[in-house]
Amino acid sequence: MTTQIKLTIAYDGANYVGWQRQDNGISVQEVIEKAIGKVTGETVALKGAGRTDAGVHAYGQVACFTTESDIVPDCFHYHLKVHLPEDISVFKSEEVPLDFHPRFDAVSKTYRYELVNAPWIHPIYRQYKGYAQRPLNLDHIVEAAGAFVGTHDFTGFMGAKSQVHTTVRTITSIDVEKVEDTILFTFRGNGFLRNMIRIIVGTLVLVGMGRIAPDRVPELIQAKNRKLAGPTFSPSGLYLMAVHYEKEIL
Amino acid sequence: MTTQIKLTIAYDGANYVGWQRQDNGISVQEVIEKAIGKVTGETVALKGAGRTDAGVHAYGQVACFTTESDIVPDCFHYHLKVHLPEDISVFKSEEVPLDFHPRFDAVSKTYRYELVNAPWIHPIYRQYKGYAQRPLNLDHIVEAAGAFVGTHDFTGFMGAKSQVHTTVRTITSIDVEKVEDTILFTFRGNGFLRNMIRIIVGTLVLVGMGRIAPDRVPELIQAKNRKLAGPTFSPSGLYLMAVHYEKEIL
Repeated sequence: MTTQIKLTIAYDGANYVGWQRQDNGISVQEVIEKAIGKVTGETVALKGAGRTDAGVHAYGQVACFTTESDIVPDCFHYHLKVHLPEDISVFKSEEVPLDFHPRFDAVSKTYRYELVNAPWIHPIYRQYKGYAQRPLNLDHIVEAAGAFVGTHDFTGFMGAKSQVHTTVRTITSIDVEKVEDTILFTFRGNGFLRNMIRIIVGTLVLVGMGRIAPDRVPELIQAKNRKLAGPTFSPSGLYLMAVHYEKEIL
Repeated sequence: MTTQIKLTIAYDGANYVGWQRQDNGISVQEVIEKAIGKVTGETVALKGAGRTDAGVHAYGQVACFTTESDIVPDCFHYHLKVHLPEDISVFKSEEVPLDFHPRFDAVSKTYRYELVNAPWIHPIYRQYKGYAQRPLNLDHIVEAAGAFVGTHDFTGFMGAKSQVHTTVRTITSIDVEKVEDTILFTFRGNGFLRNMIRIIVGTLVLVGMGRIAPDRVPELIQAKNRKLAGPTFSPSGLYLMAVHYEKEIL
């Protein structure tokens, strides 16, 4: 009998080319697919909820596969554990209907960006937080972040080589909080374009440095011109925190 | 003219055999010595304030060397920067009297141990925090920690192969605080024996699990028997935070 299994996954993305299979290195996806293969003896195709870039981390990536195996769905992650490296942790597994799709059925996603803003950054954070040395004006950043909330065409905040049907996305909220030396950005929205959060963070850093006035951000968004936005900030500080689904689907 | 330079150093100890030069791998000490050599053209011997074990990190290690170079002492760390790997950061340099010794003149040291106590630990912390899965009783840990404070013969809490003149040390304070899933232990004392903090943490974990009663800890200390204490806990969670000196020496 065919069963679809949903996995919830945390990983340290520092040593991977990203979530998705690629020719230029090892992806998180293929490592987990191989681990599943060792458990079930099957060749599986894992469908992920979000394609994290190289160096981006996850607390709650979601991915699904189908299997003929009769392993208890809720215990699947224990079987996987021995076949996974230390930097990937599948901490939950459960059965979902066969027509469930982790990406298309996702209602929203939460991402976090951790940015150290201090005269120096401790070496232990070099792969786990972004870094801006010059003092940033938090009030201006909060004001500018508000301008991104809502439904916009984010063409100007999309990485190159993206293939999408529409560049319109809805950001539900961006919370900005400073904890000691780290500015924590929490993004929640119905979906994000390639590099979108990293480009928004790069733009907010320019705002915080005084190089872009916060009240100019709405026109930056309307311009739909990648060159007017800030740089694509480091992947180190970015975490896919959670993928949210309507309860009734599961 | 001979000058002695004092460096303050942060490092990620995950990829080193420890602070001190050893035959079995690369030490933090030798990496910094080589960097100094590239800046001054001299061969220097770096004296450190504390010998951190393999995998132990530092926020404020202190080390000194003498040089004939006429580089401005306060700027020395900028010159070192280009010759150091990403996981070692010398963030301060200054001139000190030639008779200053970073270890013998240290009045006290502060160490921190970060212990995740939760059903699972995120992979990004595997080299940066210790981990105990079973729920720990924090009140019992706090009570037991208090028993270590003071002047004691810590023979029972010393790693093997230690060569010391005396096993008596004074712990001034152990602060225990829980922040979300992490228990933070802050140790301050006049010095610590080899593995001493990691063995105390291992013992406190057994106390938290209910395997050692907190009121039995004073007799455990008095027994001076390594076998009665807890395991040497993982180096991952340990940080040398600061080395303290009398102001008048500098």
